[in-house]
Amino acid sequence: MEPLDYHAEERSKASFDVEEMKIVWAGSRHAFEISDRAARLVASDPVFQKDNRTMLSRKELFKDTLRKTAHAVKRTIELNLSEEETHTLWFYVDQPAYANLHWGMFIPAIEGQGTEKQKQKWLPMAHNMQIIGCYAQTELGHGSNVQGLETTATFDPQTDEFVIHSPTLTSSKWWPGGLGKVSTHAVVYARLRTDGQDYGVHGFIVQLRSLDDHSPLPGITVGDIGMKFGSGAYNSMDNGLLRFDHVRIPRNQMLMRLSQVTREGKYVQSDVPRQLVYGTMVYVRQIIVSEASCALSRAVCIATRYSAVRRQFGSENGGPETQVINYKTQQSRLFPLLASAYAFRFVGEWMKWLYTDVSKRLQANDFSTLPEVHACAAGLKSITTSATADAIEECRKLCGGHGYLSCSGLPELFAVYIPNCTYEGDNIVMLLQVARFLMKTISRLVSGKMPIGTAAYLGRVEHLMQCHCEVQRAEDWLKHSIILEAFEARSARMSVACAESLSRFSTPEEGFGEISADLVEAAVAHCQLIIVSKFIEKLQQDIPGKGVKTQLENLCNVYALSLLHKHLGDFVSTGCITPKQGALANEQLRSLYSQVRPNAIALVDAFNHTDHYLGSVLGCYDGNVYQKLYEEAWKSPLNDTVVPDGYDEYIRPLLKQHFRTARL
Amino acid sequence: MEPLDYHAEERSKASFDVEEMKIVWAGSRHAFEISDRAARLVASDPVFQKDNRTMLSRKELFKDTLRKTAHAVKRTIELNLSEEETHTLWFYVDQPAYANLHWGMFIPAIEGQGTEKQKQKWLPMAHNMQIIGCYAQTELGHGSNVQGLETTATFDPQTDEFVIHSPTLTSSKWWPGGLGKVSTHAVVYARLRTDGQDYGVHGFIVQLRSLDDHSPLPGITVGDIGMKFGSGAYNSMDNGLLRFDHVRIPRNQMLMRLSQVTREGKYVQSDVPRQLVYGTMVYVRQIIVSEASCALSRAVCIATRYSAVRRQFGSENGGPETQVINYKTQQSRLFPLLASAYAFRFVGEWMKWLYTDVSKRLQANDFSTLPEVHACAAGLKSITTSATADAIEECRKLCGGHGYLSCSGLPELFAVYIPNCTYEGDNIVMLLQVARFLMKTISRLVSGKMPIGTAAYLGRVEHLMQCHCEVQRAEDWLKHSIILEAFEARSARMSVACAESLSRFSTPEEGFGEISADLVEAAVAHCQLIIVSKFIEKLQQDIPGKGVKTQLENLCNVYALSLLHKHLGDFVSTGCITPKQGALANEQLRSLYSQVRPNAIALVDAFNHTDHYLGSVLGCYDGNVYQKLYEEAWKSPLNDTVVPDGYDEYIRPLLKQHFRTARL
Repeated sequence: MEPLDYHAEERSKASFDVEEMKIVWAGSRHAFEISDRAARLVASDPVFQKDNRTMLSRKELFKDTLRKTAHAVKRTIELNLSEEETHTLWFYVDQPAYANLHWGMFIPAIEGQGTEKQKQKWLPMAHNMQIIGCYAQTELGHGSNVQGLETTATFDPQTDEFVIHSPTLTSSKWWPGGLGKVSTHAVVYARLRTDGQDYGVHGFIVQLRSLDDHSPLPGITVGDIGMKFGSGAYNSMDNGLLRFDHVRIPRNQMLMRLSQVTREGKYVQSDVPRQLVYGTMVYVRQIIVSEASCALSRAVCIATRYSAVRRQFGSENGGPETQVINYKTQQSRLFPLLASAYAFRFVGEWMKWLYTDVSKRLQANDFSTLPEVHACAAGLKSITTSATADAIEECRKLCGGHGYLSCSGLPELFAVYIPNCTYEGDNIVMLLQVARFLMKTISRLVSGKMPIGTAAYLGRVEHLMQCHCEVQRAEDWLKHSIILEAFEARSARMSVACAESLSRFSTPEEGFGEISADLVEAAVAHCQLIIVSKFIEKLQQDIPGKGVKTQLENLCNVYALSLLHKHLGDFVSTGCITPKQGALANEQLRSLYSQVRPNAIALVDAFNHTDHYLGSVLGCYDGNVYQKLYEEAWKSPLNDTVVPDGYDEYIRPLLKQHFRTARL
Repeated sequence: MEPLDYHAEERSKASFDVEEMKIVWAGSRHAFEISDRAARLVASDPVFQKDNRTMLSRKELFKDTLRKTAHAVKRTIELNLSEEETHTLWFYVDQPAYANLHWGMFIPAIEGQGTEKQKQKWLPMAHNMQIIGCYAQTELGHGSNVQGLETTATFDPQTDEFVIHSPTLTSSKWWPGGLGKVSTHAVVYARLRTDGQDYGVHGFIVQLRSLDDHSPLPGITVGDIGMKFGSGAYNSMDNGLLRFDHVRIPRNQMLMRLSQVTREGKYVQSDVPRQLVYGTMVYVRQIIVSEASCALSRAVCIATRYSAVRRQFGSENGGPETQVINYKTQQSRLFPLLASAYAFRFVGEWMKWLYTDVSKRLQANDFSTLPEVHACAAGLKSITTSATADAIEECRKLCGGHGYLSCSGLPELFAVYIPNCTYEGDNIVMLLQVARFLMKTISRLVSGKMPIGTAAYLGRVEHLMQCHCEVQRAEDWLKHSIILEAFEARSARMSVACAESLSRFSTPEEGFGEISADLVEAAVAHCQLIIVSKFIEKLQQDIPGKGVKTQLENLCNVYALSLLHKHLGDFVSTGCITPKQGALANEQLRSLYSQVRPNAIALVDAFNHTDHYLGSVLGCYDGNVYQKLYEEAWKSPLNDTVVPDGYDEYIRPLLKQHFRTARL
């Protein structure tokens, strides 16, 4: 018997090779195979089941995380998985856990900031998980401004120790994942004081808990910071608080690769270039951008499949109603998000190259590309994560009422995703950094300094300030060169307008503060241009597979033109395009939607998401939505009994008028 | 001793009379007093505490709701509260419960659709809560399209009964609040079949559960539909599912005010005008708009107060960092939301008048204003709820990392609010209804039919199509007439453009489907104009109190100009304003922000929200944020023990390398 597939007809409509598109999405056949295997491994393992997550109490959920984490470690050892496979397996377990911070922050901090000797001492233990670490930077009163941290590390030359202390309430470490209940160690960021001077924030390895019985060491107050957004989401994580009461650690637990304190308490900078930290930053942000495409593709997959199952209005002669995916209102909200998923995927892929390139240069002491790379990574992190967060919620709305059910998967996906907009650089702060870079780039043009990389277009600013868009018919908007020039002109003109505004203030700093909202908009324009241009570059590659490239062409155009429509004010008011050309772009967009429509289901199938990873009744592969919703409902804890707990005390007395009669 | 108040200095900066503003916000001194008393009553009653809500399991949370509901009923009886006071008390209990549907949907359905005899029979029981009812309309497979419902009610002339049946899985009733575990009765919407014909959807009173032991009656399958968005939010409600297996009810339980089935099974329409239902619709939507202003003001109050406490960057000479509310990026995101709260408040107030007016007309069989009123109520419901949902999340982001903690109150406020975008008319469906009205209005202009009320400006379409905005300096944007004309011209031009597009399609229906995304944008423009114009009308009233009117003027301008900036593409591309004028509006907006800044805290104090109602550590009146965050953290269930449950099974074996050695 054929397996049930409500989407079979939709799948048969696709005009491209889905299997080939899966490879394009994954990045390579190798990446596809690793990912596919890990996804199936996790999906088929009962320990990794996650469908009851939102029904667990906080304690149960946390214990469930501990169980899954231990099981994942066990499986990676048993299966002798490579590092890449291990990483992919963790990814598919899809539950925030202390291990993410141990592997993703604690170990890299030691690798990046520790001396060879320190690495030799700490890394083997950490890799074996004989110790478990977290990354304790953020404080109750201090987030983005790392230089404002208050925790102190004062060198005591008498004992050759640092004294770690939390002098105020606001200096309490707050938020570090894995800190609350699990970590035995932490890399703690504190103000280094020695020799009567404050040398600013440095990292220190501090043991927090006994390796015998897990109790906090003397002088250490540590605990969980409480409930967070959503019913599952990050509540599986023990984000923690931490206070030090004059806790002493040996001097050699200061991470000393970049600077040291000598036995005598003298502060010495090493000759390792400080810029090396930027490499790590680019690496982390590249991962965040890649993960944005994963989260977005997951939401889009759910909303697209459900939109093909759900029918509403439009019944003719008693026939079935119209699939909601056929409505232009649905398409105009959904398809730009589908296109964004692909766009973010490709820009994430490009950032991998960028990271490799900048790493090579740093090795060779070439710091010339750093400002551009740094602005680019910060900006892409910001706009892909903001767009993804908004898109997940939009996908939830596109699923109508049922999107509000936890079993749609979308509420939890939203709740677990949104911290991406805050951590590793608050998204607004990031855009202001991009804006600073743009202003600096423009101010240097006069001295003939040509910008490079993603800012190279600003070298053609004279042309971009006065060029005219050549679109005369809707189809003209399908030309890459025309799209690119419109986006370049918009970005350049917005940046130049900001630079001109700035020059009217008495100091640049005052101006920067005053027009910061405009600067953020200019930064967004610049970053959107990067994404559009990287999508176009991708299309210039050789892409095999029947119809694959055509689909990507359509998505690239949908991405660019839907942005143009959304930000029409920018394009028209800077004179990059005329209102008429804006209307033609909109017309072209509608016709693109019609081309995407028959391929929509196949385009989300190409993400190769398992039903386990999706975690959504609405997005299941076979489309058997209503049956599954019905079965899911009966799992509600309230359905454990026919008559609910509380009936005797609070419902029956009402019905029997006991409150009224008692009063008479 | 003075009570602690970290906001004291902020409060002293206000240049207006906060107490008078409280009256303006409440609508009248009477309304203020009712609201103030109810809020304090709830806040001071330990049963109504809600700060542990997100930590409860589903069953505990549901039982907590039952407890609070019974207690609220008891208190209203003991205190002999008026209907208005009772309603306000329920509002401040602030926890979705079956009683909302009993009072808000079940009783009104009988009042509106029942005959006098039916009302006499059922309403006294319902008012005493001897029966508890819900409103069972939506089905698993059918939401917005009520005519697509599948449940059947077939008349059996032999027994003088209706047979209620769920013929398919998708016909299962799904979502009704209070249905899952509590309601004894429901108004069930089903297709009426008699005399061999289908007469479409009608309402029937059906008993679901035994009044003796609460067990479901024979033929009835009923239960909870499961977990929903958030950890508290609507999980306090037993949204339910319901299936009928040939359940028989007496004929006289069909709600027969508008149409009847006779003893013989003949279907007879009564002469009561069908249009009466629109009165109820306006009433319900007016309440939704008012509640949007409540939810929005709550989020804005939290974000504003926290933005005055939180400091980041900008420390000079080791002094304190800058309050984040001083950053223009923060102001440009926050103050438009503050202004929106006031704007929605006043448009909600105006809708109360609209409801009274339309009710009077309906009584007098005057249906002339109905289409306009209906479009207006649908549109305002849609855009105020969408804007509020987005704004709550924006306020959460404005609170940085700590906004993600449940104790910020914002995650739960978001989760509990967003269903407003779906129920009582999906927001996109609503906007399409507005668009239909606009297209009809424009097509009738040629025959000289002058539009009325909120659409009256379309009667001046010729002028609006060619008028030029007169702004030359930024301050010109402060003139009401200029703002109004810009918004009228934008809306008129977008509607006319849509009408012209439609005329190019072979049928209007085809065109309507094809350009529906544009139609939605035109509808938004029309509705934003309504809100702006009602704010301006409010300012033409006499408003007492020192400085109060000046503040409202500022907020009105912030509201209008921030919309103009956000939708600049509409204004510029339709030629309503020039790019230069758009830039001047933006400049004026910045200077308005500077005027709002010193009054910001007082402007949110004027909402008169108690700390209980706010339910937010970040938004507390005294601003003692960090101390409260710290205390709140220790209440986390994970802090019940120092060493977490699961340590022995899942952490210790890892640290002690048991998995590794087992493998060797």
